[in-house]
Amino acid sequence: MSDNNLVEQLIQALQVMPGIGQKSAQRIAFYLLQRNRDGARYLGQTLLQSMDKVNNCKRCRNLTEAEVCHICSSERRDQSILCVVESPIDVMALEQATDFNGLFFVLMGHLSPLDGIGPEDVGMDLLAERFRSEPIKEVILATNPTVEGEATAFYITDLAREYDIPCSRIAHGVPLGGELEYIDKGTIAHAFSGRQRVG
Amino acid sequence: MSDNNLVEQLIQALQVMPGIGQKSAQRIAFYLLQRNRDGARYLGQTLLQSMDKVNNCKRCRNLTEAEVCHICSSERRDQSILCVVESPIDVMALEQATDFNGLFFVLMGHLSPLDGIGPEDVGMDLLAERFRSEPIKEVILATNPTVEGEATAFYITDLAREYDIPCSRIAHGVPLGGELEYIDKGTIAHAFSGRQRVG
Repeated sequence: MSDNNLVEQLIQALQVMPGIGQKSAQRIAFYLLQRNRDGARYLGQTLLQSMDKVNNCKRCRNLTEAEVCHICSSERRDQSILCVVESPIDVMALEQATDFNGLFFVLMGHLSPLDGIGPEDVGMDLLAERFRSEPIKEVILATNPTVEGEATAFYITDLAREYDIPCSRIAHGVPLGGELEYIDKGTIAHAFSGRQRVG
Repeated sequence: MSDNNLVEQLIQALQVMPGIGQKSAQRIAFYLLQRNRDGARYLGQTLLQSMDKVNNCKRCRNLTEAEVCHICSSERRDQSILCVVESPIDVMALEQATDFNGLFFVLMGHLSPLDGIGPEDVGMDLLAERFRSEPIKEVILATNPTVEGEATAFYITDLAREYDIPCSRIAHGVPLGGELEYIDKGTIAHAFSGRQRVG
């Protein structure tokens, strides 16, 4: 297939994206070539530009093209509440779903000693420095409810205690609209033991 | 979100691809930014390069970066059998699934008078010229089994008759591994009326 190289190469290249296999890549490649070359050029340019210019915010480690991201540099955000999350996509999810108006800290992962991911790799030194130097009154732990996420939350609770900063953990339980019979046992057990008095 | 522009822009740009919505685009964008910047750069460059260089083969209209595609220019392909398909992805599917060794003609669509797609738009003039000037002994119609695909196949049969070239249509029926009870009525009716003697 010597001279059909570029089409084949495009189909291969599209598969760098998670969730895109051979068939989807073929469909996307032919769609872009036949129907939307301008869109594809725009995507190509945006990919090159963002891979070169997007880096981590110096203060919260979130992805941004500036030195300090728009959340950290905003004067309207409450500087005394810090929400710790695992990844930038969690920041986006919380920003879209809640009216949280404090600051974030993005670990860019979670503690995982077995994979060689220690405290420095998830920016614990930077976080400790913020605990020390900033007027933080509450830390909200929004790491994922996985073993590693829980361990990471536990580690941060310990760290915050050194600076006398109280921590809270987002609630885990039955999701809204969820039916008990379809929810996994772990979640049900968690929801049951974490019940709150209502009357 | 002024200074988070480039990440937002990347998430938007990824949605030019069919089947990629907001959520998938977010996941892909953050994955590429955090895990695979080299892969994303490669994808970006390949997109730009292929959108600029890939065009239609002068002979069969398939997508290629050369004047004439590798199938048309191969000396080992049988020049007397021509398979007509709707799109380049069909060429790829037939090349992968069959040992067909003839040439292709890619309509890049199908006749659809209601959408203003007439014979010239699907290259019928070029096809007629090939019927006239080339030693074609059989035309295999592999357009899709849709109303438009059938109409297009019918149109080509008429055209080939003018040059005394016999046409065949690929078989439509119950797919291998398919169970009758789950197959749509149209397919079953087609398979039943198209039954072939076996003993």
